[in-house]
Amino acid sequence: MIAAPDLNEIDMSAPTIDVLGIGNAIVDILVQTTDSFLDENGLTKGTMALVSTEQQTALYEKTGQAIESSGGSAANTLAGVAALGGRAAFAGKIKNDQLGKVFSHDIKAAGVTFTTAKAEDGAPTATCLVLISPDGQRTMQTYLGACVEFSIADLDEAMIRNAKVVYLEGYLWDPDPARDAFFEAVRIAHDAGRKVALSLSDPFCVDRHRDGFLSFIEQHVDILFANEDEILALFELEDFDAAAARIKGIVEIAALTRSEKGSVVVTKDETIAVPASPVDKLIDTTGAGDAYAAGFLAAYAHGRDLRTAAVLGGHLAAVIIQQIGARPSANVQHLLLGLDG
Amino acid sequence: MIAAPDLNEIDMSAPTIDVLGIGNAIVDILVQTTDSFLDENGLTKGTMALVSTEQQTALYEKTGQAIESSGGSAANTLAGVAALGGRAAFAGKIKNDQLGKVFSHDIKAAGVTFTTAKAEDGAPTATCLVLISPDGQRTMQTYLGACVEFSIADLDEAMIRNAKVVYLEGYLWDPDPARDAFFEAVRIAHDAGRKVALSLSDPFCVDRHRDGFLSFIEQHVDILFANEDEILALFELEDFDAAAARIKGIVEIAALTRSEKGSVVVTKDETIAVPASPVDKLIDTTGAGDAYAAGFLAAYAHGRDLRTAAVLGGHLAAVIIQQIGARPSANVQHLLLGLDG
Repeated sequence: MIAAPDLNEIDMSAPTIDVLGIGNAIVDILVQTTDSFLDENGLTKGTMALVSTEQQTALYEKTGQAIESSGGSAANTLAGVAALGGRAAFAGKIKNDQLGKVFSHDIKAAGVTFTTAKAEDGAPTATCLVLISPDGQRTMQTYLGACVEFSIADLDEAMIRNAKVVYLEGYLWDPDPARDAFFEAVRIAHDAGRKVALSLSDPFCVDRHRDGFLSFIEQHVDILFANEDEILALFELEDFDAAAARIKGIVEIAALTRSEKGSVVVTKDETIAVPASPVDKLIDTTGAGDAYAAGFLAAYAHGRDLRTAAVLGGHLAAVIIQQIGARPSANVQHLLLGLDG
Repeated sequence: MIAAPDLNEIDMSAPTIDVLGIGNAIVDILVQTTDSFLDENGLTKGTMALVSTEQQTALYEKTGQAIESSGGSAANTLAGVAALGGRAAFAGKIKNDQLGKVFSHDIKAAGVTFTTAKAEDGAPTATCLVLISPDGQRTMQTYLGACVEFSIADLDEAMIRNAKVVYLEGYLWDPDPARDAFFEAVRIAHDAGRKVALSLSDPFCVDRHRDGFLSFIEQHVDILFANEDEILALFELEDFDAAAARIKGIVEIAALTRSEKGSVVVTKDETIAVPASPVDKLIDTTGAGDAYAAGFLAAYAHGRDLRTAAVLGGHLAAVIIQQIGARPSANVQHLLLGLDG
């Protein structure tokens, strides 16, 4: 038997929210592409790059017909938590423009509390041009737009104090004011006895911010989410087991995802390997990591043990990669209800 | 053998465009719904209603997560013509806003020439809230936005004169300035010896404009597209064969679609029935009629006979109803190339 996370360590006085996510509020522009298109445009498959609106537009003009769908890494995760029946909230910056309304509608429609004030002027709502390859991998070009305005002033202290877990996406480290908010959110959460979770987002994000991340993780993170590339990038290692050994004890829980190899949960006392959930047909890997974090956190916040949390993370990731788009389009509450806790 | 359309009747001097469509430029907001949601909100399944932005927003706020996808009936048809390898152009009014950029990108990405000047102020780009039922039927709430500004000033006379067929959507009859443009486009097309095609769009559109449509069809339309409900509404009849008999001789070609019963092409001299193309799994009927018109017109403009045109229309409609969205996401050029002409 795996021990359940010790919820007695969490101040349970009226936690009205299971998970509060803080991240970039982004609308995805999804387009099918080819490997040769990526090559011709000097893009590295599977990566996310921050670009200017001019760079994004220049690439967009060369792509085929697209569809728009609300995204953002942490936002996707919180939509997943809500879809699983968890009490979810999200904070992130949009502008009061058409795509901002799309983002706001969709996150609320997913059942997520979203109250961050909209910017009335300045840069437009952020967009991520997602190029989906025939093998289902995605290559992303993100224009952060209004996200760079997210700051400490946008934090809702009462909401942070009321959330069992505050979940931060690594991408939030890119815009400076958001990074400041990141630290302040952590201070409030820990002051209230809550848990702080971090997703490393992508290996290039880790490369951009390695030293800052390492110091932040050591001092402030309780639960770390990373895929294999990200945890290797963090420690500049090439061997997964070595990286898993390094993270052991630095954080209370590290949930490390390995695509078709499943996931490994590492705590001070144990290492739990869980196989990947079965997949019939991989359509689009967008949001796989976000979905894993959603399933994991939904189970964790419901007091389930770590193996069950990893299994639910894998289940939701399997659902997401068999559809277009990063948020569950089907009813997935049965996934949580059906688990042997 | 079915006679090919007599292209000698068309002035073939430098027709650089196969089909020019004129219609409302709309971005669809696609959302999965239930029959009970439609009932609770007093919506009649399968219909399109014109609504204010306030009405559309009020309904949108009650719906689940959506995806955005460029739409518009004639615009979808022209995207289909281009996807089949036809030379396609479209005229319609967007605002220079985020959704206008989405529309403009997608129609051009589809290979369609689109040069209509964007509105810099006034109402936003039109949106259609498309509620997709579990049976694949769609119920639409359209806010016309910038479309109501489309007027004679937006017509490109040289482009109209250079198109073998000018294709008009019935919905364009709703905004007054667009209706005026409708008549002027027809005048220019016929003056240049081109063909004028009209889609009746939907039975409620026919109800709104029956007398105007009847007079317009008798005087100006060469090729009429209508589904069974629409042609019955036009003549206020209840029997399809009676309606087909009524249209005979009024227009040169009437292409009448009957869902799973296929289509019937009626000319002065003959009636050609074509069975529906096989469908594995119906996903979303959005754009079935638009796709039929695309296949029909692409074949017609390439000088194929009427039966072949009806077969290609049915093929493209079958592709479209087995995917989400109204424009072909897969390469469909093989459909045209593969036909026995």
